[in-house]
This record gives sequence, C-alpha cells and structure tokens, in this order.
Amino acid sequence: MNVSRTVLTKIVLPGDTNNHNTLFGGLLMKYIDEVAAIAAKRHTQRDIVTASIDGVHFHKPILSGHIVTLEAYVSSVGHTSVEVFVKIMTEDFRSNEQTIAATSFLTFVALDEHGKPAPVPEVYPETEEQKFVFKDRHARREARQKKRIETNKLIKALGS
Amino acid sequence: MNVSRTVLTKIVLPGDTNNHNTLFGGLLMKYIDEVAAIAAKRHTQRDIVTASIDGVHFHKPILSGHIVTLEAYVSSVGHTSVEVFVKIMTEDFRSNEQTIAATSFLTFVALDEHGKPAPVPEVYPETEEQKFVFKDRHARREARQKKRIETNKLIKALGS
Amino acid sequence: MNVSRTVLTKIVLPGDTNNHNTLFGGLLMKYIDEVAAIAAKRHTQRDIVTASIDGVHFHKPILSGHIVTLEAYVSSVGHTSVEVFVKIMTEDFRSNEQTIAATSFLTFVALDEHGKPAPVPEVYPETEEQKFVFKDRHARREARQKKRIETNKLIKALGS
Amino acid sequence: MNVSRTVLTKIVLPGDTNNHNTLFGGLLMKYIDEVAAIAAKRHTQRDIVTASIDGVHFHKPILSGHIVTLEAYVSSVGHTSVEVFVKIMTEDFRSNEQTIAATSFLTFVALDEHGKPAPVPEVYPETEEQKFVFKDRHARREARQKKRIETNKLIKALGS
Amino acid sequence: MNVSRTVLTKIVLPGDTNNHNTLFGGLLMKYIDEVAAIAAKRHTQRDIVTASIDGVHFHKPILSGHIVTLEAYVSSVGHTSVEVFVKIMTEDFRSNEQTIAATSFLTFVALDEHGKPAPVPEVYPETEEQKFVFKDRHARREARQKKRIETNKLIKALGS
Amino acid sequence: MNVSRTVLTKIVLPGDTNNHNTLFGGLLMKYIDEVAAIAAKRHTQRDIVTASIDGVHFHKPILSGHIVTLEAYVSSVGHTSVEVFVKIMTEDFRSNEQTIAATSFLTFVALDEHGKPAPVPEVYPETEEQKFVFKDRHARREARQKKRIETNKLIKALGS
Ligand SMILES: CC(C)(COP(=O)(O)OP(=O)(O)OC[C@H]1O[C@@H](n2cnc3c(N)ncnc32)[C@H](O)[C@@H]1OP(=O)(O)O)[C@@H](O)C(=O)NCCC(=O)NCCS
Ligand SMILES: CC(C)(COP(=O)(O)OP(=O)(O)OC[C@H]1O[C@@H](n2cnc3c(N)ncnc32)[C@H](O)[C@@H]1OP(=O)(O)O)[C@@H](O)C(=O)NCCC(=O)NCCS
Ligand SMILES: CC(C)(COP(=O)(O)OP(=O)(O)OC[C@H]1O[C@@H](n2cnc3c(N)ncnc32)[C@H](O)[C@@H]1OP(=O)(O)O)[C@@H](O)C(=O)NCCC(=O)NCCS
Ligand SMILES: CC(C)(COP(=O)(O)OP(=O)(O)OC[C@H]1O[C@@H](n2cnc3c(N)ncnc32)[C@H](O)[C@@H]1OP(=O)(O)O)[C@@H](O)C(=O)NCCC(=O)NCCS
Repeated sequence: MNVSRTVLTKIVLPGDTNNHNTLFGGLLMKYIDEVAAIAAKRHTQRDIVTASIDGVHFHKPILSGHIVTLEAYVSSVGHTSVEVFVKIMTEDFRSNEQTIAATSFLTFVALDEHGKPAPVPEVYPETEEQKFVFKDRHARREARQKKRIETNKLIKALGS
Repeated sequence: MNVSRTVLTKIVLPGDTNNHNTLFGGLLMKYIDEVAAIAAKRHTQRDIVTASIDGVHFHKPILSGHIVTLEAYVSSVGHTSVEVFVKIMTEDFRSNEQTIAATSFLTFVALDEHGKPAPVPEVYPETEEQKFVFKDRHARREARQKKRIETNKLIKALGS
Repeated sequence: MNVSRTVLTKIVLPGDTNNHNTLFGGLLMKYIDEVAAIAAKRHTQRDIVTASIDGVHFHKPILSGHIVTLEAYVSSVGHTSVEVFVKIMTEDFRSNEQTIAATSFLTFVALDEHGKPAPVPEVYPETEEQKFVFKDRHARREARQKKRIETNKLIKALGS
Repeated sequence: MNVSRTVLTKIVLPGDTNNHNTLFGGLLMKYIDEVAAIAAKRHTQRDIVTASIDGVHFHKPILSGHIVTLEAYVSSVGHTSVEVFVKIMTEDFRSNEQTIAATSFLTFVALDEHGKPAPVPEVYPETEEQKFVFKDRHARREARQKKRIETNKLIKALGS
Repeated sequence: MNVSRTVLTKIVLPGDTNNHNTLFGGLLMKYIDEVAAIAAKRHTQRDIVTASIDGVHFHKPILSGHIVTLEAYVSSVGHTSVEVFVKIMTEDFRSNEQTIAATSFLTFVALDEHGKPAPVPEVYPETEEQKFVFKDRHARREARQKKRIETNKLIKALGS
Repeated sequence: MNVSRTVLTKIVLPGDTNNHNTLFGGLLMKYIDEVAAIAAKRHTQRDIVTASIDGVHFHKPILSGHIVTLEAYVSSVGHTSVEVFVKIMTEDFRSNEQTIAATSFLTFVALDEHGKPAPVPEVYPETEEQKFVFKDRHARREARQKKRIETNKLIKALGS
C-alpha cells in the first residue's frame, strides 16, 4: 500500500469558503478526487477514470486559515478497479491539533491504451489502519453495487 | 419547487479532462455542489452548508467539447435540512442529443445568523419527475442516516 | 429558439468583486461570452468564433452573495453568422427577487472543418420576448456594420 | 495621460483557446476590463466601477502561442467618469511582428468613500495617437448615450 | 522537525506545461512557496511572510502526466525567521520511479498580532537527511545575507 | 533590448494575499516567471525553458489593492541561454507613488525544434539602467555556476 499512499496539504484561503468561513463542500470533493486519482495511478501504473464516489458526510467544518490534509491509499482492489480510501483532516496551525473532517471511498477503473478496462495488481494492507479498512471491503462493494442498480433504475425512469 | 430550480451549463474544455478526454470526476462534483447550493439558498432564503453528498455513479463519460447541463431543485425537506436532486446531462452539440451522465442527491443545512440550524419551508412537488423523485425520500433519508452512523464509527475507530 | 436556449447560474463570491462589493465588469463579460457561445453552438451544430459584442451598459450592480443568472438564445441569423441575445439577472436569495442587471447582443460566425464561415440554419422566434427582440434585428445589424467600419478606420489610422 | 498608461502582456496558452486555436472572446474581454480599470484608477486616484463597454469587433484572431499585449490609457473624461481606450495587439514571437487584433472603449465611474460618484481630474492628450483618439470623444459620448437609452427601453419592455 | 513536515502531491496537467511538455518554472515556484509556508506555520504556530527564496536550479524537467511531489520542513531557525527546505521530486507513474527535479531553501519571518517579527521555537533535526541539511545552515545564512545587501545596493542604484 | 522589454500590470486582489494583506510570495514568483519568459521569447524568437531563478529578496510588501508592475528585459546572453532582469514595483493608486518591491534574475535556455539548446542573438544595452545591469553579468554568471554545482552536490547527497 505504501506505493500508492499520497498526501495533499492545503491552506484554506478566504476565497475558498462560504459566509460562515467554512470550506465549500464541492471544493473538498475536487481535492478528494485529485489525491485519490494519484493514489490509483501509482498503484495501477495506468491511466484511470473515476467510476464512483461513495456518500460523503461532512463531519466537521474546515475553517478559513486552517490547514487541510488529505491522505489517500488503495484500500482494496477488484479485477479492473481499485477502491481508494481518503482521510481528510483539518488542523488549527496555532495548536497543531488535527481532527478528521470527513472520509471518502472512491472507485477508479484502470484503462489500457485503447481506453478499455485493464487488470490491476493485488493490494496488501500493511498498517493497523489499512487492515481495519480492508476488512469491510466486501460490505462496501455490495452497497455500491446496490446503489449503482438503484441509480440505473432512476436514470431509466427519468427517461434518457 | 420552481423557485429552487437552478441550471448550470458549461462547455467541457480540453484542460478539464484526463488523458481519455473525459471530464475529471472531481470537477463535476464541484459543479454539482455549486448548482445544488444555489437551489438550496433559493428555497430556504438562508445561508446554507453542505451536510452530505450521496454516492455518485458516473454513468456515462462527459467528453471534451461536449456541453454539460446540471439541473438542480429541492426534492424534499426535513426540519432544518433540504435534500437537493441534481441531474447531469451531457450533449453532443453536433446532434443536440442529451443523455443523463449522472445523478446526485445532496443535503444542505440552513443556518441562522449565529450559524445554528434553522427551520426550512415545506416543498411541494409539481412536475411528474419531481413527484417521482419525492416518493422515495424516506428510503433515501434512512440510507443516509445509516451511512452517517457507519462513517462516525469509522472515524472513531481511526482515533480522532 | 428553444434548442439554443442556455442558462448559466452563479453565486457571486467575495473574490469576484471589487472594493464596493460589485462583480467585476470583465468577469461578467466572460460569463456572457461563455453562455452565448453555447447557445450559438447548439443552434448551428458547429464550432463558432466570437465576431463582436455590442456595447454593454451595466444597468444595476451585481452584489457579493447575490445569484446571477444568464439566459442566452439565438435572436436572429445572417448567412454565416448568428446573433445571440443574453439577459443578465441579479437576485437576492433572501427575497427571490430578480432584476435585470444588463443585456447583451453578440455575433458568432459558424466555421466549417477548414475554419471557413459556414451557412447557418434559419431561426423562428417563439415566445413574446423572442418576437420582440427579433423585430429590431435589422437596426442592430446596421448599427453593428457602421461600428465595424469605424473600428477598421481607427485601426488603420493607428497604423497597423 | 502618461500617468494612466497601463500595459498587460500575456502568452496565449492552449487552455485559453477554442477548437480553432483562437483566444476566447470572453477571456479577452476580461483582460480588457482589468487593464482599463488600472488605467482608470491611476488617473482618478480613486476606486472605480465599470459603467459600460462600447461594442468590440474582433478584427483578427489571437492564436495559441502568440503574445497578446493590451495597452490602456484614459482617452477623455466627463465630470465623474473617465473613458479608457484599449489597444489589443497580437504578436508572433518568431518574427516580433505585431498587428492590432481589436480596440475597445470603456467608461468607468470614480467613487468616493461612500460609493457615490466623485469628480475626476482633467486629461491632456500628449502623443499623436492620444490626440487622434481624443478628437472624436464627443461623437463616442453621444453614441453611448443613445445606446444607453435604447438599452433602458429594452429592459423596461422585458418587464423587470 | 516532524511537526513541520508537509507534503503536496500534484499531477502535471497539459495546461500546466509549455510547448515542450515541461511544467512552467513559475508554477513550480508557486507550489514551492505554498508547501513551505505551511511547514513554517506548523513550526511557528504563527502567521508568516516570505522574506526570501534562495536561487533555484531546475535540474530535471517535470513532464506532462507525471506526478510531482513537494516535501517541505523547517531546516534551521534564526531569532524571528525560519529556513524551510523543499525537495521536489518528479515521478513517472508507469514505473513509480522518482528523481529529484529541484531543491529550494526559503526564509519566512514569523509575525505577531501587530505584524511585527516574533521569536520562533528551536528546531531539532531528526533524520539523516535533516541532519545533513542542518549542517550547512550558517554558510547558507551568510550567502543570503550577502545577497540581500547586493540586492539593496542594486535597488538603491535603480533609484527608488 | 527594446524588442524584449515586457510589462505586466496587475491589481492585488484580497484573494491574492495572506492574513497581513501581503501578496503571496509564490504568486509573485509565478508572475515573474511569466513576464520574464515572454521577454526571453521575444529576444530569441524561440521556445524557451526556465533553467534557474537567482535568489529573490522580498524587499517591501505588496499590499492588497495596490498595483504591481513587473518590467522584464534580456539583460545579457550566453551561447544558448539568456539572462532576464525583472524589476517589480508596487504602487499606491491614491498617490501614483511607485517603490521597488523586489528584483530578480532568471536564466532561460532557447530550444530548437528537437528540444535541444539553440544559439541566441547578441544583446546591446541601451538605457543607463540596462548598461548598469549589464556590467555585472560575469559576476552573476559565476555565482550562478557555483550555486548550480552546490545544488548538484546536495541532490547527489540526498541520493537520487
Ligand atoms: C452539517 C452540520 C451543520 C450538522 O450539524 P449537527 O449539529 O450534526 O446538526 P443536527 O444533528 O442538529 O442536524 C441538523 C440537520 O442536519 C441533518 N444532518 C446532519 N448531518 C447530516 C449528514 N451527514 N447527512 C445528511 N443530513 C445530515 C440532520 O438530519 C438534521 O436535519 P433535519 O433538521 O432536517 O432533521 C455539521 O455536521 C457540520 O457543520 N458539518 C460540516 C459541514 C461542512 O463544513 N461542509 C463542507 C465541508 S468541506
Ligand atoms: C469574425 C471573422 C471570422 C469574420 O471573417 P471575415 O473574413 O470578415 O468574414 P466575412 O466578411 O465573410 O463575414 C462572415 C460573417 O461574419 C460577419 N461579421 C464579420 N465581422 C463581424 C463583426 N465585427 N461583427 C458582426 N458580424 C461580423 C459578417 O457580417 C458575415 O455574416 P453573414 O454571413 O451572416 O452575413 C474574422 O474577422 C475573425 O476571425 N475575427 C477574429 C475572431 C476572434 O478571434 N474572436 C475572438 C477574439 S479574442
Ligand atoms: C536547463 C536545461 C535545458 C540545461 O540542459 P543541459 O543539458 O544542462 O544544457 P547545457 O549544459 O548544454 O547548458 C545549456 C545552457 O544552459 C545553461 N544552464 C544550464 N543549467 C543552468 C542553470 N541551472 N542555471 C543557469 N544556466 C544554466 C548553461 O550555462 C548553458 O548556457 P550557455 O549556452 O549560454 O553557456 C536542463 O537542465 C533542463 O531541461 N532542466 C529543466 C528545465 C525545466 O524544466 N524548467 C522548469 C522546471 S518546473
Ligand atoms: C521580511 C521582512 C518582514 C523583514 O523585515 P525587517 O524589518 O527587515 O526585519 P528584520 O531586519 O528585523 O529581520 C527580521 C528577520 O528576518 C530576516 N530577514 C530579513 N530580510 C531577509 C531576507 N531578505 N532574507 C532572509 N531573511 C531575511 C532577518 O535576518 C531576521 O531574521 P532573524 O530574526 O532570524 O535573525 C520585510 O522585509 C518585509 O515585509 N518584506 C516583504 C515580505 C513580503 O511581502 N513577501 C512577499 C512578497 S510578494
């Protein structure tokens, strides 16, 4: 997992926040996709495309002037897809205290030269945290599969 | 619902895409949050903050040069929160053909002057589509509640 | 005209405004060109290039925190060019009240594969507003032509 | 006029252009407003706001990789407003040859501390070009006034 | 030193590069200042301002599609200033091979609430690399001091 | 030297500054590289790549709302490289007073069609300032060469 571990650190600027000095949810989603995509590329050594993002709950606000750190790694793999876990921490630089603001799981598909899905290497959890996150991969995969079917139904019903 | 209906239309530029000429997932998430936040503000007439984004499945790629249209409206409400539905369509301008590329549900909390959750007005579905989407609101709320509890457990386990 | 109708909705962020909390004129011009170009592409089903923007008067300031909505459609056509009308509305989300902040007419030229001007389809006004705007197309075209000749003279006089 | 003379030089990057490698018209409009606003601030020594932009005709395309130079100065003044002239040149760096791509006149209003229009200093043309441009100020002012009345009528007719 | 260690990882997009698919030097400088400023804030627990950047030699080009990783930490301290070392690595994701593309030393001054220089905590090198870099701090400080005097002379000669 | 002289003028917006309303050092470095690269292209009539930036000392803060002017020209040349001098001035628009905020020397290498270093034309200083800056070119080149060797040693020691 070490090869895929990717870190992105940013200062939250006033222009990144809404009226309550809280980082925009959509901007955080953009950072999450960016850091996770690098983790997926490092693991698969291939071009990749985002297939899905699991539901994200914004646990704690991320305030203007704070430091936000995103840490991503491949948490489990399928045949041609990898699941990436992202931990988002917010930090007041006046105390060096970090708290988790949100977590996120994304799925990326590896692509060959013709843009077709390509097999991905196995993953081996190393740290305690990685093993902990690895354990529930089947439940997450199932929930994702179920959600995907629901989405397809909804799209069909919306007639397009 | 008409008062909250919000549309955002964009051309996908080469710089918005990865090596396979597909719009970055994270950039789409940013657009989704922007358009949905405006719908939530129009309905609640208040400042709002993103509480969560349900899982998003990227059904169809959105290609470089295509037109992407995001349509958002408040699809149901709680006491202090609103659920916003976003439909994302991709369109080849050479044929005017539109297909749904993804759908998304977000929850926003309305805030009073002190940044505390504030009550929101009721919502009344009008079109066929709005009624259809309104129907399943309880199932979505439950799934979201369950997912929120799971996330909280995960965050506690990660020790922060 | 329906096929070309294009809407762009944005929140005005503090970073988009000058010292008096007013949206920068140049940023509004950029949004106007973006939304109008999509309308022109939808109508012509071709790549297009901006040939000119008629004079824009900033009627009402667009304030920080307000919602700005741009609505564009092809308002009349020539042989290889289309005229696009853009209506810019500003809205205080605390009251849902909209007022027109500015209006704009742009001309785009449709291009074939070799980058040469290409013929464009006819346009048929549908709504009352579209018919009203359509009526004065000849006067606008003449004024534009006159202005173009003046500009060419000025450029020649400046010696380049 | 020397005090207000302002220059902005940019390289046109691929991401700034459409499919025909031509700078987006809206991006050029944004640069025009930025450089002209600085000229207006330098002359008035005050905060300013864009009141109007006269029609802009895009005479020559500005190509990817080319250097675009915008030169702005206050070309005439009213009581509380200044007219700024902007000359836009495109340059192929392989030959150092410059041609005028467009010209633009903008009007800015000077504001006092309360955001109210404030008187502006007189302007004295110095170079041949400045004198040439100065000469036609009354005709431009009249045309602008006429256009403003037309716009107001149109806005009233659109009912808002 | 661990508390100040800060990592920033980015994919080089086509729009970030010049005609030879090489990351713009100025964009790398911007990333360097951003990551170093966070390291300085983490160490000093204060607002900070960049006082100087030592000469940067671009050893290896950073190519489009590659992953660039910037790693920063406080490498030595003065009374009110900290020196931050930044190591910039470029990585081809198809092989996971990293090479150093450049290195950089920056000096930041810590500021109190009134914007005046404020004392900073001591620093203790931990890893081999940190000890190695720490060793030459006096030579770097002297060279910087000399360069600062030269710059002041030049500025005086330029008459301002 | 006139052919390479390049000017870039910007307003410092609130979003460009840190908590003490001072322009970010990294953003200034980005502007410096942009304006210097255009000067190098104009002189060499070739694509170019940044080889190095000499140490930059931030002499005076550049405040929010101020106008920053960057002036660049080729100050001396080697066989395949050019040295560009950049003078950065900050200006309070309420008094039109300019002071030098920083100075910078950059080296660019000219590239032929295959991306290999290509010979560059001679340069002839014209103004008093240009002659003054030209005089010390050999000292700067030597210092740069020495610094480059040190950097190479450091990189080797860091083992990559
Ligand atoms: C969202 C937030 C305001 C909720 O605060 P809270 O103290 O948990 O509020 P409550 O428990 O009183 O819940 C308020 C409402 O939010 C809803 N809510 C809370 N968390 C939610 C979640 N993760 N998903 C969906 N709805 C949620 C509750 O159901 C309740 O809705 P209701 O009044 O309609 O029944 C708080 O968690 C927060 O500030 N999070 C960070 C938000 C943020 O910064 N977003 C951008 C991140 S980059
Ligand atoms: C616009 C442009 C393609 C016109 O080329 P041209 O050789 O003058 O073309 P023509 O004279 O054959 O005119 C073609 C159509 O454009 C129209 N046109 C040309 N210049 C125009 C202008 N300034 N304003 C409005 N319409 C204009 C003509 O009326 C004609 O329309 P029609 O066929 O409907 O009657 C050319 O001037 C150009 O490339 N300009 C630069 C465009 C650009 O790069 N824009 C972005 C700048 S950042
Ligand atoms: C700059 C670069 C092209 C030099 O290549 P090289 O093989 O070392 O070239 P050479 O040794 O033949 O030197 C060519 C010229 O560059 C000069 N040069 C090389 N490195 C330099 C440095 N660090 N500082 C100043 N000048 C330098 C040489 O003095 C020589 O100049 P001259 O011909 O005027 O005497 C190469 O190191 C490179 O590609 N670096 C990365 C550049 C880059 O990507 N910049 C942006 C980074 S984000
Ligand atoms: C940096 C700055 C605060 C220094 O102010 P000053 O009044 O000269 O401060 P002092 O002489 O008391 O020096 C304070 C510390 O800064 C250091 N310092 C000052 N200028 C420096 C320079 N150019 N390079 C490195 N260190 C410098 C001093 O050595 C001293 O360090 P120490 O306390 O560890 O010994 C001031 O020059 C400034 O505000 N510059 C502009 C900074 C800026 O705006 N940066 C972004 C530009 S876009």
